[in-house]
Amino acid sequence: MAVYTEVTDEQVDAFLAQYDLGAVLSLKGIAEGVENTNYLLVTAQGQFILTLYEKRVDEGDLPFFLALMEHLAAKGVTCPVPLHGRDGRALRQLAGRPAVIVSFLEGLWPRRPQPRHCAELGAALARMHLAGLDFTMTRPNNLSVGGWRPIFEPCAGRAHEVQEGLADALAAELETLEADWPTGLPSGLIHADLFPDNVFFTGDRLTGLIDFYFACTDAFAYDLAICLNAWCFEPDRSFNVTKARVMLSAYRKVRPFSTAELEALPLLARGSALRFLLTRLYDWLNHPEGAFVKPKDPLEYWRKLRFHQQVSGPAAYGLD
Amino acid sequence: MAVYTEVTDEQVDAFLAQYDLGAVLSLKGIAEGVENTNYLLVTAQGQFILTLYEKRVDEGDLPFFLALMEHLAAKGVTCPVPLHGRDGRALRQLAGRPAVIVSFLEGLWPRRPQPRHCAELGAALARMHLAGLDFTMTRPNNLSVGGWRPIFEPCAGRAHEVQEGLADALAAELETLEADWPTGLPSGLIHADLFPDNVFFTGDRLTGLIDFYFACTDAFAYDLAICLNAWCFEPDRSFNVTKARVMLSAYRKVRPFSTAELEALPLLARGSALRFLLTRLYDWLNHPEGAFVKPKDPLEYWRKLRFHQQVSGPAAYGLD
Repeated sequence: MAVYTEVTDEQVDAFLAQYDLGAVLSLKGIAEGVENTNYLLVTAQGQFILTLYEKRVDEGDLPFFLALMEHLAAKGVTCPVPLHGRDGRALRQLAGRPAVIVSFLEGLWPRRPQPRHCAELGAALARMHLAGLDFTMTRPNNLSVGGWRPIFEPCAGRAHEVQEGLADALAAELETLEADWPTGLPSGLIHADLFPDNVFFTGDRLTGLIDFYFACTDAFAYDLAICLNAWCFEPDRSFNVTKARVMLSAYRKVRPFSTAELEALPLLARGSALRFLLTRLYDWLNHPEGAFVKPKDPLEYWRKLRFHQQVSGPAAYGLD
Repeated sequence: MAVYTEVTDEQVDAFLAQYDLGAVLSLKGIAEGVENTNYLLVTAQGQFILTLYEKRVDEGDLPFFLALMEHLAAKGVTCPVPLHGRDGRALRQLAGRPAVIVSFLEGLWPRRPQPRHCAELGAALARMHLAGLDFTMTRPNNLSVGGWRPIFEPCAGRAHEVQEGLADALAAELETLEADWPTGLPSGLIHADLFPDNVFFTGDRLTGLIDFYFACTDAFAYDLAICLNAWCFEPDRSFNVTKARVMLSAYRKVRPFSTAELEALPLLARGSALRFLLTRLYDWLNHPEGAFVKPKDPLEYWRKLRFHQQVSGPAAYGLD
């Protein structure tokens, strides 16, 4: 929740002169999204989101993300669509940052996801995977198994500050996952960060997906494993197998998955838990004094990892 | 910039059941305002602000603030107006906090105020002072001269962490102001926190005032002194006498001020600088590790205080 870059009236006016959106009626920083600065922009034409990309987003990836949103929207996946200016470009500079205006999506993200939300999510994820099949651009997942050790190593010496013995446990897990990480699973475009605050609902109906700035090319089942972790644990830390079952069932009604994908789920779920654990651990140990954003608790994902280490197979996720 | 209290879908639905605003289309936390949690609420009826009052606001003061906004709006001062529910009440509970829905104001706050903004502000401040003349409720200014020592004393021992010698300098200033603080000046309803982010403009036209949660009963000229500090210093720390002159001139065209008020301005400006210096110093020394909100630099107001200590009279503010 942050506005990292303040923009002046003059900068906004100059930026908007490239569009036909009418007079600016309101511009409010949004306290959601930890990576970029987002403003809710209201003009005579309606509501829009103005996003300024901050340093954690690689500028070289922006054409991929913007093209992806346009591709998905054209395929019927409701997501923000970048607006093109009079010069045809969607991406330009604002206050020294790359910036775009995207369409505004109605809906609320579920603060306490229920099984009905998980079912909607499963189906929407599968539709997104199918919609991405003919998206021709690719982007490697630099936060998959090959990317974890470079995050772990600078943290290893201080991981005990978070929990005694954490470094050894993570080193062992990393070794296991590096040795056994599944390959050859059906792959394509994945969202890779589909937490509840990136999924909008109106009532019980899913109305859109946002925040494609971790999207990449990887195994579809890994995207499901990320959602299992993000949607199916309760605040009391218990795993809600009902939520997992309805999510996976709804997914496979739209895109049936193979036996190999099903068998790989526990390991993919461990990997997904480790991925978020490591980036949170890194942020926890390295967040600057007085930072805008409160770092997220890495141990939440340690407990999720422990759960998946102990399951005996994919049946633990509620499937036959 | 913060969302301190997250609300669940169920809580919002139950809350909104008291109003006739139609279906919720969107609810986004706003990254502005450091005291309370604000959501931009979009329903079938339009845009509204949902405010949850956090601990720094005294619940006993809320009826004053809400009645004040209604009074000012009825007098033609554009400001947020609390909505009343079917039960007639504007104030109710949400997620364990007192909460209201207020009307949405169009406009942007000026990130870099120009003299034209300062002129608009001066006139609007005077109109607000006049509009408050027949507001019958009162609220003492607990952040005026009598309230400063209780903030200073717990900070005195650590003020040197911010700047060497600061504690002694503040103690001396506090003694001067306690001895010489002007009394008997024309008084009434003041805003007491009219920083640029609380004043909205569309183009060059001032369209509204927000955030009345420091409003109280005190000298009108003290409100002006707060605005001198908040609007008339440049990012390079210089005092922009043009901005001060147009602000004060525009003010006195609407509400002429007395010689006593004019003569008191330098001391009131010192007091206003000390007030913000002290609360910022307190927050600087006491903000919790990993807090949501980055504390503001107390030394900005130390430099403003030094400026006002050195002026020879109100002519320093550009008036004849």
